[in-house]
Amino acid sequence: MLKDLPGPDENSAAAVRERAAQVLRPLGALARLDEVAAWLASWQRTDRPKVAAPAAAIFVADHGVAERGVSAYPQAVTRGMFDALERGGATAAVLAREQGVALEVWDVGVGAPTNDFTVEPALSEDRFEQCLDWGRDAVAELDADLLILGEMGIGNTTAAAAVCATLFGLDAEFWTGRGTGVDDATYARKLAVVETASRRVPAGTSPLEILREVGGAEMVAMAGAAVEARRRSIPIVLDGFVVTAALAPLEITQPGALAHCISGHCSSEPGHRLLLEKLDLRPLLDLDLRLGEASGALLALPLVRLAAACVTDVATFQEWGLPGRL
Amino acid sequence: MLKDLPGPDENSAAAVRERAAQVLRPLGALARLDEVAAWLASWQRTDRPKVAAPAAAIFVADHGVAERGVSAYPQAVTRGMFDALERGGATAAVLAREQGVALEVWDVGVGAPTNDFTVEPALSEDRFEQCLDWGRDAVAELDADLLILGEMGIGNTTAAAAVCATLFGLDAEFWTGRGTGVDDATYARKLAVVETASRRVPAGTSPLEILREVGGAEMVAMAGAAVEARRRSIPIVLDGFVVTAALAPLEITQPGALAHCISGHCSSEPGHRLLLEKLDLRPLLDLDLRLGEASGALLALPLVRLAAACVTDVATFQEWGLPGRL
Repeated sequence: MLKDLPGPDENSAAAVRERAAQVLRPLGALARLDEVAAWLASWQRTDRPKVAAPAAAIFVADHGVAERGVSAYPQAVTRGMFDALERGGATAAVLAREQGVALEVWDVGVGAPTNDFTVEPALSEDRFEQCLDWGRDAVAELDADLLILGEMGIGNTTAAAAVCATLFGLDAEFWTGRGTGVDDATYARKLAVVETASRRVPAGTSPLEILREVGGAEMVAMAGAAVEARRRSIPIVLDGFVVTAALAPLEITQPGALAHCISGHCSSEPGHRLLLEKLDLRPLLDLDLRLGEASGALLALPLVRLAAACVTDVATFQEWGLPGRL
Repeated sequence: MLKDLPGPDENSAAAVRERAAQVLRPLGALARLDEVAAWLASWQRTDRPKVAAPAAAIFVADHGVAERGVSAYPQAVTRGMFDALERGGATAAVLAREQGVALEVWDVGVGAPTNDFTVEPALSEDRFEQCLDWGRDAVAELDADLLILGEMGIGNTTAAAAVCATLFGLDAEFWTGRGTGVDDATYARKLAVVETASRRVPAGTSPLEILREVGGAEMVAMAGAAVEARRRSIPIVLDGFVVTAALAPLEITQPGALAHCISGHCSSEPGHRLLLEKLDLRPLLDLDLRLGEASGALLALPLVRLAAACVTDVATFQEWGLPGRL
């Protein structure tokens, strides 16, 4: 799945870095944003990067493990939020509308929960392949110059923690947070579920198999979407813990597989910060958000858009007729 | 100057907090942004806060202390950047244009440097009053629902450090950074200048007098602008170290005087982080920016705009016909 994927266009990135060094400001004054612009250029394959046609794909599914009482909300909330995302009432829908982001919401398992991964693989091999395909298809039908991935699914921070605990092998408590805001008893159950799940998976299981074993349908779909975006050289802004955990197996399988992704934000889930460090991703925002739905990535989107403008649209010393760098 | 200024409209803030607790997301999932929306509401004095008519006022001036060799750039750059800001080639001009922000650039001393504050007060009493008035006038002629303050002036991180060192009394090295990117020799000179200046000012000098003694013309103008904005109940997004240092004397004079301000970002100037802590301001962005010009505040502006929409435009459980919080 990860073979023959394109790398970044280093020429475009270099052209952007070169211009950034010539524009009317002290060298490196916006270095972090200049690098965002160079990254954008390298995947849009142009020395004039811009965000003109952004799209957000949100994948929604139910989780068998929700039956274990790991969330503050009942599973039925998944369908309610799917509707609210699709019909415009939810937070991510508002954030997309405000910014002219094309929003697509994909049902990849609402009302069809995965298996309880404390006792068996979350997804059968067939369902795993189906979800990967849905994710790929979602991206294939887009005409976007930048992609945001998001998710919703009651129980899915538990799945994300289980994927991380199994992938990286640290104790469950490093990866398990309060999700939507669970109480102490629920947190204890969540912790036990993550521990049990990560112990169930045999040592030596491949990263993508781990995603099938203890992930979720929307997580698998996002992994498929990320691969298809890479194939099409579409840059991705990652949302929170669940999105990042869903894509982590790609990077572990093949280092660099997520080079087309930047992190939109670091959430208040403790596992998210740790995971970003493991993946060497530096988030743009750090605002203790814990919503999901693509909301953090949508909040970071203006920075990406403006980072590009700060290189392409600011005059150079030369253009401005000033003596200066060259 | 700080008498009879309006406080926040707590009713509007409470209404926004109440709605934020009823919208379709887990309680507190966007808590930081909900507080930004409540803050915006409290100064716009409405339970439907929004950013529809943002304005940025950038004050530009020269500094006598620049002759001491404290900057990587010659003083003539101040005029060049004034032109670039006014005529649209500079970074802040691009960031304003991209977001429909009305940009006004004010010359409050370009080519008319302040006195060298290592040996005498930077501004005479008359010039101090004049600059305060210019700042007030700049705001009085705006029709804005949100204000961004910015500055440009070669040598002004030295003035900002001198103001902070004198106001808060910590060693110069805590407040003095590399500004536009100075080398070791220049940094040593800068440090000595800040030390000399803060020692020159007599103990017991009032905060606003300190601003006159070791600040700069654009800094005084920004303090005047902040007071006028408060009088008109216009919320302010602060840019970087120089802006925050310019307004700090107001807060020290009268705690709460900057309640209508939030911090757009924390820059890479070490003194900025310390100053934000002293003023109990929590920045929205933390991206190692070090440009000034209002650029950091302009980059944070989308978060303020979107924070409001995330309360006013997201449906409540009740509006969505769902059982949920009430």
